[in-house]
Amino acid sequence: MARLVPVTDAADPRLTDYVRLRDVNLRKSLEAEHGLFVAEGEKVIRRAIGAGHPVRSLLMARRWAEPLADVLDGLDAPVYLADDDVLEATTGFQVHRGALASLERLPLPSVDTLLTTARRVIVCEDIVDHTNIGAIFRCAAALGVDAAVLAPRCADPLYRRAVKVSMGAVFALPYARMADWRNGLGALRERGFELLALTPAADATPIDEVKAAERRALLLGSEGDGLSSRWLHEADHRVRIPMDGAALARGVDSLNVVAAAAIACYALTR
Amino acid sequence: MARLVPVTDAADPRLTDYVRLRDVNLRKSLEAEHGLFVAEGEKVIRRAIGAGHPVRSLLMARRWAEPLADVLDGLDAPVYLADDDVLEATTGFQVHRGALASLERLPLPSVDTLLTTARRVIVCEDIVDHTNIGAIFRCAAALGVDAAVLAPRCADPLYRRAVKVSMGAVFALPYARMADWRNGLGALRERGFELLALTPAADATPIDEVKAAERRALLLGSEGDGLSSRWLHEADHRVRIPMDGAALARGVDSLNVVAAAAIACYALTR
Repeated sequence: MARLVPVTDAADPRLTDYVRLRDVNLRKSLEAEHGLFVAEGEKVIRRAIGAGHPVRSLLMARRWAEPLADVLDGLDAPVYLADDDVLEATTGFQVHRGALASLERLPLPSVDTLLTTARRVIVCEDIVDHTNIGAIFRCAAALGVDAAVLAPRCADPLYRRAVKVSMGAVFALPYARMADWRNGLGALRERGFELLALTPAADATPIDEVKAAERRALLLGSEGDGLSSRWLHEADHRVRIPMDGAALARGVDSLNVVAAAAIACYALTR
Repeated sequence: MARLVPVTDAADPRLTDYVRLRDVNLRKSLEAEHGLFVAEGEKVIRRAIGAGHPVRSLLMARRWAEPLADVLDGLDAPVYLADDDVLEATTGFQVHRGALASLERLPLPSVDTLLTTARRVIVCEDIVDHTNIGAIFRCAAALGVDAAVLAPRCADPLYRRAVKVSMGAVFALPYARMADWRNGLGALRERGFELLALTPAADATPIDEVKAAERRALLLGSEGDGLSSRWLHEADHRVRIPMDGAALARGVDSLNVVAAAAIACYALTR
């Protein structure tokens, strides 16, 4: 049974894992240094624990101890109970979902290990927005993509906001981080993956017209500039979501990265 | 040529159209009363004007007068030039895109008029989030949906945030508002539309297995609860995005409404 520990001071050093959750730079260094991440909300906390992440501690409003009682029962970690104002002063925002957990990150597999059994993968070059990476993981996992490979500068799927938007899909979709952007696609080639670069370019092939290969990797670029010319050049096919001609004429010439990724994952896994 | 009018006081009554842009309730009543809406950013302003919305005024940081010079040339409306702090004090947030326009709403067509020529439409029951309605309009327009029908409580596509997220697609996709939720689907039936209700229910038909009818309407429910039981019952088919079995077993059992709408619009327009 977890220890229930009331806390009344936002500056209590036992709450260090939870400070300033919206300060991206601070969180990056704090989480890297301690190998932790933060899950928010009952459902996501359950999924994080269910995925095997050891719990460092929980921090919640008192009202959450009851709905999470079965989880707390099995825990050997402190559960800090605080009033809403202490929660807000610690985290820097109103914690609507009322419950937070600090969990240990697990070692990521190597790209090579990840690709051993995967047949459908997404490769994210520089998705920099945490909301987007979370939403893309949710789509990919739901539609049956087997794994994700992330370029070195791609946003962290275990950042609180990404975890939350993904509804815990970041625990369901195995992923690995490539060490080197320049030669990062090499491991996919060696494993026999056909590389499909998603682009809005009008001369790319409609994604549903590319014949399905045994192993396929969908390359997704950054929100603003899309894929780098290096990766576009290295791909086997440049593919696009077919857009409506009349819409193009009215200036609606692209989808946002999540909508495009959702449709592309759907097409990839049909 | 538009008149360039420097303003230095956030309380200047000439800036009333732009006050507290993040205060949803205030904006609703203010915009309804004056029949106006606000467009933000150069690209979106150009599209709003291009779509024929008369301009009431513009408000911008001085640095935007030059890039928008060709637009201002043709305008017979005041252009208020202000420093960033005045912009922020008026609107209630940092206006990153630096330029705002207040434009007149145009009369919406009736549902019946809208449906005369349309063949592929989306029907939004209660999409309440402005970001979501903007993103859904962008997807629908880009993929070749002909029109949107909105239930009475569905969010306003011309709310600033919806316009911005849609990248101006709200000007490209014709839409109408049904007067009555209860009998709202009747007009679609009378026009011969096949009604497809999108749902995550496991016993619904995979959307790509429904034979394409001549005229089809895709019904989209609210973010939280999905479609009402009334609309689900009235639909000809309940359709779902096929989800991966292994993902379902790991608790990834749904897509967010924008991703689901994107895939469904793609399937609808193939």
